[in-house]
Amino acid sequence: MEIALLGGTGDIGKGLALRWALDTDHSIVIGSREPEKAAEQADRYATLLADRGRDPEITGVGNGEAAAGADVVVLSVPPEYARSTVEAVADRLEPGTTLVSPVVPMDRTAGGFQYDPPGTGSIAEAIAAATPEDVPVVGAFQNLAAGALSDLDNDLTADVVVTGDDAEAKDLVRELADEIEGIRALDGGPLAATAVVESLTPLLVNLAVNNDGMHDLGVRFQ
Amino acid sequence: MEIALLGGTGDIGKGLALRWALDTDHSIVIGSREPEKAAEQADRYATLLADRGRDPEITGVGNGEAAAGADVVVLSVPPEYARSTVEAVADRLEPGTTLVSPVVPMDRTAGGFQYDPPGTGSIAEAIAAATPEDVPVVGAFQNLAAGALSDLDNDLTADVVVTGDDAEAKDLVRELADEIEGIRALDGGPLAATAVVESLTPLLVNLAVNNDGMHDLGVRFQ
Repeated sequence: MEIALLGGTGDIGKGLALRWALDTDHSIVIGSREPEKAAEQADRYATLLADRGRDPEITGVGNGEAAAGADVVVLSVPPEYARSTVEAVADRLEPGTTLVSPVVPMDRTAGGFQYDPPGTGSIAEAIAAATPEDVPVVGAFQNLAAGALSDLDNDLTADVVVTGDDAEAKDLVRELADEIEGIRALDGGPLAATAVVESLTPLLVNLAVNNDGMHDLGVRFQ
Repeated sequence: MEIALLGGTGDIGKGLALRWALDTDHSIVIGSREPEKAAEQADRYATLLADRGRDPEITGVGNGEAAAGADVVVLSVPPEYARSTVEAVADRLEPGTTLVSPVVPMDRTAGGFQYDPPGTGSIAEAIAAATPEDVPVVGAFQNLAAGALSDLDNDLTADVVVTGDDAEAKDLVRELADEIEGIRALDGGPLAATAVVESLTPLLVNLAVNNDGMHDLGVRFQ
């Protein structure tokens, strides 16, 4: 399976790339608006994995090239670039490719971090509206702390809530999430139920800010 | 300490009453719009506790009488009655009493449960706006499943996020939450940060609906 991480040089993209490269044999493609930066980062990730005795397939290319041919494309970009990134790669996405949104729109206010969705729905639904119809969009990975993912010495214990309207695409993303050691994938319902998943992330940040000894928080439902 | 549970004949009120009566020596007052119903329920709760060798102080009275003289008043009523209940007891609340909102406004849609706050803020802030100024409002207990609380055979393991602007009131509610075995109270920040706490509850319900074997879900941040 080929997994492309658009914006894969950023925090959450790095974390997911490292974990999939550590725990699976999937081919990982790091995408960036700057192909050279993507290639450099891919080399760095490969070195980190080599230190752990792994020899993963990780390459770095432009976002468009990364999107083309991947089975799963993760939109690991900041919320303000989510829509423009999708639009920039839309004609490179092959029918049946699964697009994954880990994106969380947040606003920092005097009262702490707040959820700041576009209009009434989630950003995942806004992304779906900008995505070709034959490319299913799945929400996942919003509630993982990038720091906890990227630190490979850290044993993960976290739930990932997966939402989407295409059952096959959703199952695929659940499997990919479950393949990361310590992650448990859960079904959050249709894409229309993504807002309550995205809005958990500002709560995680607020808890880390307000409680001594808590940082890089994840969540476990029980 | 005297804890009044307005609407204490309902699910979440029952759960909190039973747990405090089981794990602490606080005096518990069940409030209801119908005083006789409150008294009957209080007797039932006392019987349940007696079966466990406990002899708690539990009485049942009208909501107004329950609110008068309590150190902490928990507004355990459905969201549609939150504001009217506060208004009905406002002149019975003594200065310095702490009012706790476990209330979560949710909407059931074709796309699952959604968070449905009044206007732009949380319902806790709307409740605070209807409460006398000398009565601090604290958000807490929104993410506990009533079923998990009420079943005293069930060992709880759940986090409670506490929000509020009055440090003393917030500390008091954190202590009361921590006194329930299996509950860990966390600081969620000011009252303005309550929306992201309330919105976690529809996610918990969606997860219970969509995943086999998951029910009465709570949350643990780690």
